[in-house]
Amino acid sequence: MPTRLLSYILKWLLLSSLVAVGAGSASALFLVSLDWVTDYREAHGWLIALLPVGGFVVEWLYLRVGQSVVGGTNLVIDTIHGSDAQHPARIPFRMFPLVLIGTLVTHLLGGSAGREGTALQLGGSLADQLTRPFRLSPTNRRLILMAGISAGFGSVFGTPLAGAVFGLEVLVVGRLTYQAIFPVFIAALGADYVTRWWGVGHTHYAITTVPPITPLLAGCALLAGAIFGGCALLFTRTTHAIAHLASRYIAYPPLRPVVGGVVVAGAVWALGTTRYIGLGIPVIVESFGQPLPAYDFIIKLLLTTVTLGMGFKGGEVTPLFFIGATLGNALAYWLALPTGLLAGMGFVAVFAGAANTPLACMVLALELFGTPCGPYAALACVTAYLCSGHRGIYGSQLVDKHKA
Amino acid sequence: MPTRLLSYILKWLLLSSLVAVGAGSASALFLVSLDWVTDYREAHGWLIALLPVGGFVVEWLYLRVGQSVVGGTNLVIDTIHGSDAQHPARIPFRMFPLVLIGTLVTHLLGGSAGREGTALQLGGSLADQLTRPFRLSPTNRRLILMAGISAGFGSVFGTPLAGAVFGLEVLVVGRLTYQAIFPVFIAALGADYVTRWWGVGHTHYAITTVPPITPLLAGCALLAGAIFGGCALLFTRTTHAIAHLASRYIAYPPLRPVVGGVVVAGAVWALGTTRYIGLGIPVIVESFGQPLPAYDFIIKLLLTTVTLGMGFKGGEVTPLFFIGATLGNALAYWLALPTGLLAGMGFVAVFAGAANTPLACMVLALELFGTPCGPYAALACVTAYLCSGHRGIYGSQLVDKHKA
Repeated sequence: MPTRLLSYILKWLLLSSLVAVGAGSASALFLVSLDWVTDYREAHGWLIALLPVGGFVVEWLYLRVGQSVVGGTNLVIDTIHGSDAQHPARIPFRMFPLVLIGTLVTHLLGGSAGREGTALQLGGSLADQLTRPFRLSPTNRRLILMAGISAGFGSVFGTPLAGAVFGLEVLVVGRLTYQAIFPVFIAALGADYVTRWWGVGHTHYAITTVPPITPLLAGCALLAGAIFGGCALLFTRTTHAIAHLASRYIAYPPLRPVVGGVVVAGAVWALGTTRYIGLGIPVIVESFGQPLPAYDFIIKLLLTTVTLGMGFKGGEVTPLFFIGATLGNALAYWLALPTGLLAGMGFVAVFAGAANTPLACMVLALELFGTPCGPYAALACVTAYLCSGHRGIYGSQLVDKHKA
Repeated sequence: MPTRLLSYILKWLLLSSLVAVGAGSASALFLVSLDWVTDYREAHGWLIALLPVGGFVVEWLYLRVGQSVVGGTNLVIDTIHGSDAQHPARIPFRMFPLVLIGTLVTHLLGGSAGREGTALQLGGSLADQLTRPFRLSPTNRRLILMAGISAGFGSVFGTPLAGAVFGLEVLVVGRLTYQAIFPVFIAALGADYVTRWWGVGHTHYAITTVPPITPLLAGCALLAGAIFGGCALLFTRTTHAIAHLASRYIAYPPLRPVVGGVVVAGAVWALGTTRYIGLGIPVIVESFGQPLPAYDFIIKLLLTTVTLGMGFKGGEVTPLFFIGATLGNALAYWLALPTGLLAGMGFVAVFAGAANTPLACMVLALELFGTPCGPYAALACVTAYLCSGHRGIYGSQLVDKHKA
């Protein structure tokens, strides 16, 4: 083996392992805290009345000390794209505590949001702290940031292979390059190991029945995929529209989540249920086993787009899992596929469309649900990707070529 | 949904389904014939003495009527790369019967070869027959050829998801583009369905024990991956060297397989076993369950590189599965991983290194062996890819960037 290759391997084993320890531990801390604040909120429903206040405080914090990291996940992606020119500075470490606290506040007080955006920012901000001590070149900095993204994704969902592919796939719509393939796989597998080492587990979802594929069932999967893609498009368009309106009509940023918080808290009060806020994991689990109300997905979509569009911190992905799984569940009335299978297909495919990451989501389905659902999940993810438009939840993604 | 997208989807549903029916039926015919010639050869050992004669006849046939298709798999890949300029002509349909007969002769008479090269050529040549009747643009021709490759791969191995990713991944080392993502998935899933519809099944391989991953075991997987990559490099270098020597010292092409046939038939006679010729599937199955001689992989490597380097028709991949699985089996003496797991890792990783397709091979492992082996297979495939050099078994692959 040539010396150059050996030194490359050893260097990235070291760097990716450091990223893995940091991001995996961060995900463990984050997941445990999320569980805690979710349980606390469920036990103390009056907290939801404080959602507007919490939103104000977090946004005010960002305004005072967080302007350099307010870009969030897009800042990490932007830095990877332009690390050699426009973004020479390190991603400030303050991204880490700010997004962690901001996301926990969202969940403690009953916003509807996810966790992957937070995990990517935790992983990315930690990874970039290695840039200066190790004097990484712009190219290597790019690789370590991708490793940070993969580590965050892989460890927060317990799906390291999907996390690795996600880190390679998310940067550009329609193109995947392999330069970071070794760093991202080491970082994602390592971070997942570290999170589990801390004793933190993940929810188990089960698809009990998968019929052998036939042309009719494949047609159903394609149709479902197109609907999932349309839903992803609706989600991103609505989020962008709300954010656009908010920044146009509410000049002072900390007031935006106040309005958003009033809307979401009011909706919870009017609906009389906490079913649609937070991560929504109990509903996701239900959607694999029993018929649910057909409107579940649209309420979750509205509450999440208001929460995130109005400036609350948190990710998009777990709500997208919720929206997809409940939409799939509802489609079981019309399509000749089992409920659990459609829920699983929606779980991965709405996300595939919204994030423009069909291969990562296919691998996610294989890791979470096992191989039998693979053909259905692949058809749904690829079709959702085709039908979801070019602007996804990450505005900093570049577009390689038109999808169709 | 905009009309343009809808017409794109309907167009590619039709075209990819046609490719699927053709390539899936071709794979079924090919697999059944392969079984038949293999059984016949095992029952009539004297046939192996005719290997030099068979090689001469096939190569003479190619010299007389097959010069336009002698490029084989590389011709298909080349046509995809350059379909808009240098290769305006259709891939001649004669590629289909010539490579089918040529491969069956190789297997009937005891050469050591595979089937994926043949399946890719069957799929590719069939797909290109649609170019003229449907007046496909150069871009669409590219897509339908990629669909043909994916359909061939997916149906000949019964692994449609790996086939689809392979079609996207094989063209350029280090880059994967998504333009063909819908066509390749429809074609691969459809072709696999068609092959099974004809009643043709696939060998089942089982990894019975997969330990939870630890840093030590991950280190073992990386080391194994590097060895698998080195083995892939040895395979491609040896094949190229033999082909180079043959074309340098044996001017008349039909004489090359005569010499190769004498060497291989002589080796079978000297070894007194047919263990190392043909596809070698019984040995692959054994390698998952019991310790095998440590030299198995090197004998198979030599016989296959002589067979293919000297001009016999057939693929590289099943022998690479054999070489990887037996090498993995042998590594179980030294590495703290179970025999079956190492066999499965070698099965996919030597191929990942030789074809420069780590993601397809990771998906292949998930489809063939189930998800528990995923992290090990991924580490092995990625490391083998890194360590296998830039020139793989397909000379027409382009290289995007250096791997490390």
